[in-house]
Amino acid sequence: MPRIRLYHYWRSSASWRVRWAFALKKIECEFVAVDLLGDEPESPEHRARNPLGYVPVLEFLDGPHRYLSQSMAIIDWAEAVTPLPALFASDTFERAYQIQLCEIINADTAPLQNLPPQFMYSDDSEKRKLWAQTWIRKGLSAYQALAQKTAGTFSMGDIVSAPDLFLIPQLYNARRYEVALEEFPLLKQIYEASLATPECLAASPERYQPS
Amino acid sequence: MPRIRLYHYWRSSASWRVRWAFALKKIECEFVAVDLLGDEPESPEHRARNPLGYVPVLEFLDGPHRYLSQSMAIIDWAEAVTPLPALFASDTFERAYQIQLCEIINADTAPLQNLPPQFMYSDDSEKRKLWAQTWIRKGLSAYQALAQKTAGTFSMGDIVSAPDLFLIPQLYNARRYEVALEEFPLLKQIYEASLATPECLAASPERYQPS
Repeated sequence: MPRIRLYHYWRSSASWRVRWAFALKKIECEFVAVDLLGDEPESPEHRARNPLGYVPVLEFLDGPHRYLSQSMAIIDWAEAVTPLPALFASDTFERAYQIQLCEIINADTAPLQNLPPQFMYSDDSEKRKLWAQTWIRKGLSAYQALAQKTAGTFSMGDIVSAPDLFLIPQLYNARRYEVALEEFPLLKQIYEASLATPECLAASPERYQPS
Repeated sequence: MPRIRLYHYWRSSASWRVRWAFALKKIECEFVAVDLLGDEPESPEHRARNPLGYVPVLEFLDGPHRYLSQSMAIIDWAEAVTPLPALFASDTFERAYQIQLCEIINADTAPLQNLPPQFMYSDDSEKRKLWAQTWIRKGLSAYQALAQKTAGTFSMGDIVSAPDLFLIPQLYNARRYEVALEEFPLLKQIYEASLATPECLAASPERYQPS
């Protein structure tokens, strides 16, 4: 296993996804906090890590010096270098269905509810909240409709898999934006079951909150 | 190969990605147009295919009746059932890097520039254009910065790979929203090289435009 460093932010949902994957796979990693609320994301140092300015970013400390951003990419890398426990199914359709669930959050929910579009949308914090709630509700409604067909204790059966890594941080954000989890009863069950697992909890924002 | 049907829209960038993947892999497929500008996306029939209401959606016509949406998921499925020509590298890091490039478009550009957030942002068409341009420029700038390190004729060397499938339809959208490709000289080269390939052209919007 190469020596790696993860640039992350305690409350970033995409950072939580990766921290959780690493916790499940027992991938050792140095964690470096990037303060998303300060100037650091716009700094030349961070832009060199990720030209979008976002987190998480994985840095490879051995061999050719390389960076990798995008949680889907980092989790794919983690699955390849540490296949077990598997986050994706070996069955072709089931695996693709998992990716579908991941992308409902990764592509069609989180980027829309994140701060950059919120702040372009409005200077008014109440309007920004309404914006975030709109996209959160749309994404979670679709996720729940699909998960009705596949869920057990978690999104796909009774074992944590990649979709859960995307869902749970999004539900955490839903609560921050005052979208009650009671609106999504199945997802609320998965949220509570996930937070009862040691790896999800160990990767959660509160464990990385600056003191 | 199972019998499949793709619900798509001629001008949807995510539909073009999948059509292009199928053209490269010579995957036979029935195409059914969904008019994204009409009422069909909100219809119960289409919501049953994809609860988000978007395209593309793949339908499996044999065996258990199933749907699969999200272009990343459909392309992953295509890669598994028809591995050649490969859209993703076998090297672990290179593959993850490709996913990173795909997601810059799939997650951090296209969902933001698409019509639903545009119309929540403003009733004014000039403001909507500015909104779309903002996210297109941000995404393409990041993509180009990363592709500088990897591009040959295409995004990763001299062979079409998954990132190109995401990039080219996004560049087509850039032109629609009056973002000049000259702002991104490397991406413009990749755009022109791609549109000179028969598979990209065969999958392009103009070939599926309703008469």
